Amino acid sequence: MKNKINFETNPNTYKHWELLIENNCAFLIMRVNEDAGFFEGYKLKLNSYDIGVDIELADAIQRIRFEHPNVNSVIIKSGNDKAFCAGANIKMLASSDHAHKVNFCKFTNETRNFLESSFKESSQFFICLVEGVCAGGGYELALACNHILLVDDGSSSISLPEVPLLAVLPGTGGLTRLTDKRKIRRDLADVFCTMEEGVKAKKAKDWCLVDTITKKSSLNDELNLLIKEKSYNKKKADDLICIKLNNLQKKAVSNEKIIYSTLSVQIDREKKFATITINAPLDTAPENLSDIVSQGDDFWLLKCARELDDAILNLRFNELEIGIIVFKTSGEISNVLSYDKLFETYKNQWFINEISYFWTRIFKRIDLTSRTLITLIEPGSCYAGFLSELIFAADRSYMAEGEFEEYDNKEATIILSSSNFGSFLMSNDMSRIDTRFIGSPEQILLAKQNLEKQILAEEANDLGLITFMFDDIDWEDEIRIFLEERSSFSPDSMVGMESNLRFPGKETMETKIFGRLSAWQNWIFQRPSAVGENGALKKYGTGNKGQYTKERT
Amino acid sequence: MKNKINFETNPNTYKHWELLIENNCAFLIMRVNEDAGFFEGYKLKLNSYDIGVDIELADAIQRIRFEHPNVNSVIIKSGNDKAFCAGANIKMLASSDHAHKVNFCKFTNETRNFLESSFKESSQFFICLVEGVCAGGGYELALACNHILLVDDGSSSISLPEVPLLAVLPGTGGLTRLTDKRKIRRDLADVFCTMEEGVKAKKAKDWCLVDTITKKSSLNDELNLLIKEKSYNKKKADDLICIKLNNLQKKAVSNEKIIYSTLSVQIDREKKFATITINAPLDTAPENLSDIVSQGDDFWLLKCARELDDAILNLRFNELEIGIIVFKTSGEISNVLSYDKLFETYKNQWFINEISYFWTRIFKRIDLTSRTLITLIEPGSCYAGFLSELIFAADRSYMAEGEFEEYDNKEATIILSSSNFGSFLMSNDMSRIDTRFIGSPEQILLAKQNLEKQILAEEANDLGLITFMFDDIDWEDEIRIFLEERSSFSPDSMVGMESNLRFPGKETMETKIFGRLSAWQNWIFQRPSAVGENGALKKYGTGNKGQYTKERT
Repeated sequence: MKNKINFETNPNTYKHWELLIENNCAFLIMRVNEDAGFFEGYKLKLNSYDIGVDIELADAIQRIRFEHPNVNSVIIKSGNDKAFCAGANIKMLASSDHAHKVNFCKFTNETRNFLESSFKESSQFFICLVEGVCAGGGYELALACNHILLVDDGSSSISLPEVPLLAVLPGTGGLTRLTDKRKIRRDLADVFCTMEEGVKAKKAKDWCLVDTITKKSSLNDELNLLIKEKSYNKKKADDLICIKLNNLQKKAVSNEKIIYSTLSVQIDREKKFATITINAPLDTAPENLSDIVSQGDDFWLLKCARELDDAILNLRFNELEIGIIVFKTSGEISNVLSYDKLFETYKNQWFINEISYFWTRIFKRIDLTSRTLITLIEPGSCYAGFLSELIFAADRSYMAEGEFEEYDNKEATIILSSSNFGSFLMSNDMSRIDTRFIGSPEQILLAKQNLEKQILAEEANDLGLITFMFDDIDWEDEIRIFLEERSSFSPDSMVGMESNLRFPGKETMETKIFGRLSAWQNWIFQRPSAVGENGALKKYGTGNKGQYTKERT
Repeated sequence: MKNKINFETNPNTYKHWELLIENNCAFLIMRVNEDAGFFEGYKLKLNSYDIGVDIELADAIQRIRFEHPNVNSVIIKSGNDKAFCAGANIKMLASSDHAHKVNFCKFTNETRNFLESSFKESSQFFICLVEGVCAGGGYELALACNHILLVDDGSSSISLPEVPLLAVLPGTGGLTRLTDKRKIRRDLADVFCTMEEGVKAKKAKDWCLVDTITKKSSLNDELNLLIKEKSYNKKKADDLICIKLNNLQKKAVSNEKIIYSTLSVQIDREKKFATITINAPLDTAPENLSDIVSQGDDFWLLKCARELDDAILNLRFNELEIGIIVFKTSGEISNVLSYDKLFETYKNQWFINEISYFWTRIFKRIDLTSRTLITLIEPGSCYAGFLSELIFAADRSYMAEGEFEEYDNKEATIILSSSNFGSFLMSNDMSRIDTRFIGSPEQILLAKQNLEKQILAEEANDLGLITFMFDDIDWEDEIRIFLEERSSFSPDSMVGMESNLRFPGKETMETKIFGRLSAWQNWIFQRPSAVGENGALKKYGTGNKGQYTKERT
């Protein structure tokens, strides 16, 4: 399994999904090509999926929001006449190494959270039309939608057979959405999750596992009614212009360096860290909305978002040994600030809004990236407004104090804006500043008093915005020593520590999915009963059942 | 490591702790006997601890509440002149199997939560006096106290060196208490948790890692001042009578059967389940408070609590292959109800109150027990008030419907009382009924309308209080089939599933410790970097460092 995973795709090259637009409706039709698995050695039968299938789904959801903003309803259905979806492919899981299992589950979870945010953020209501078998990850996909419509034909069924059949969990949010989204009574959830065969229409409706059921004969009427009822025409038609998402401008200069149009990624294999440097735009932002929209996907705020998302995913999946991500920025801070102001100025305009939500997702993705995150604030950097979120997303941030000879004696500065106080919420539904100062609300007020001011190192330190500051004499050595030390620690204990420290305070359904559900799943993904030679994942499809160690722990 | 673990102890037989009472103060002095480890093969150097040490601590905290209710301040300090406490013993951890590691951590976490509840529930303020090395679990013990007083002598220090030194987490609540109790800024927590050497007085105070620091010369004055300030004299002296906790009345009839005075435990090794049957008292409760108090630890509500706690711990640690606990009750329901009423009648009386909090802890311990929990409500059972909590703590509850020949044609009933609506909160700070009906508050109201009524199976089913009901014809078969099926599943996937389904909705510091922190720690406890032949736990003390797989997952 050494193929590099490329996260770029588009509807013209989809192998597994079809995206149809009809008026204000989008139809997402899942018709998995069983011979087009991303890796060798398995067939994607019964609309089961692997990372390749899910990359297309993530792409489609993203495009519906940018390219088809007039869409009010999205209908997910199957184009396979035997199944809606049989969930994640078991043979793929069985043959994957631990890291891919974990990365795969995290990405599919993010895709479902993203899908789930579409209604609240962009009034796109997701209807899942279930006909045929809907098992495991298939039902978890349905659970992420706003409405599940199950066909009552005596054979269509929903199930979470992971526990009885595979000795793993429904780990793509399934358990958490049962209890926290659909609020199924916990003992009924227990019954449902231990039934290999699942339930059909009537019981599914009685137990609140689906929203409505329908006979096949009235399916179209039901669906049309639902679309009519649930389609909120909140958006002004004249405002909604298709923003085509073209291929990214990226160039792999070497195995260690990728250059995008707004940023670059540089890998140090020996020291096991990657540096992502975001470059400020060369000019200030266009002020006029029509100028902004006419730039389409070339508009800097969108371009940079897409490129950063791609860069992070590439490191996550394709660079497993790179344990640290160092964020840097470079360029004219006033240009970044002028772009940042657009989030406030045009906060009711759909395009700017979509971009803002996209950045919310990217920052969340960064929070959930299991690498040490370090942000360096050097002379010549451009941390203004939304880009300053990188300072608060990081496990630590280091700021240069005073003038630095090699940077023409500039001083490093940070500029905060309203973007840092609620525009980009974490998975815990709090801003990063609120999360940072969870124990000292007075610090939040102090930070607010410094809105749009240039904050130098000493003040940033006093305000608690950074972890450490060093001057020209110490800077390089201190950073080097830190990176070396960090790389010497056990990657696993880093993952565990960071997963805990990044999310103080309250939990939400999202943080529970990543913090509680996924942690247990990762544990199970290490256990012989699931992944050993005679474990259930390995034995699936052989005609033999898994053999289990009998100890409870 | 096959010694059976006995959870009963008392101050006369303590090997590692000394409990001194002086007026309204208790001193808990940790002086670990390094040659008295619970298992073979390690020395408990520098006040490091194993399960034996922690059983004594748990016992001491319990006794302070019942035997010394007049105590207002508890001072934890070391009797070892080199160290306060070096944390959990590493060689013990390294040589333990996975199940013991997990069980050990859970028990120590429960002990710290219990300690932490002492102030709120019983006005016993815990002061941790730290002198010398205070590392890992040592600092985690301090974190659970109300006040940490660190000696500023140039050498005393606190640290959480697990991550850099051992490649595991500070898993006894450490990470969660840093962020959620002390609300340390997350980047400073990151720095602290990666420093092998920890920090001394000044920095510890600056970073809010301790509450006060003091020079050795003014230590006694500081301590006395603190005791005076923090000792709330809420309790009426005439009300507080020492309730001596004598040895439990228990008898192991065989390897499969233990009989206590109020309950029995019967193990079916073949089918891998244990039945705990709680017997109702033979008479109604004494009405008069002085009669209650004069019964001391023979008072049924207290006796039953102590015995149930012991039974649960015994199953957890000594019966790893018993994957299911079946709860049954038997006897006169009106007698149980008369005892249950005391919780309401005497809710402001310290002794009844202490017993009520003890039951809160036991029910929490049950919620956190990683075995399938099943409650059977049969004819002749006595689920009234607080005992009905077992119905809602269970993963599933089965109720007998109609008359059963073998039970003299009695019908099974449930009686709810105010006890079920807020008296025994779960770790999530919600009642079990509120948790059960998290999606349907109207069901909570319906349940409340049936307070103190005899609820038969059909009504219990309509009210959603039980999972399934079966009549005389089906009962035995259905239960048998269920138990067989449950035993056939992978124990690990059961643990993961139950850990998620039992805690819908909001999370608290306690649920985060068990659900997020412990799940990650359990994952790490499976990983080669920690527990492999060259893992850090195994290499500790050999002079060689652990070798780590470099992949991040």
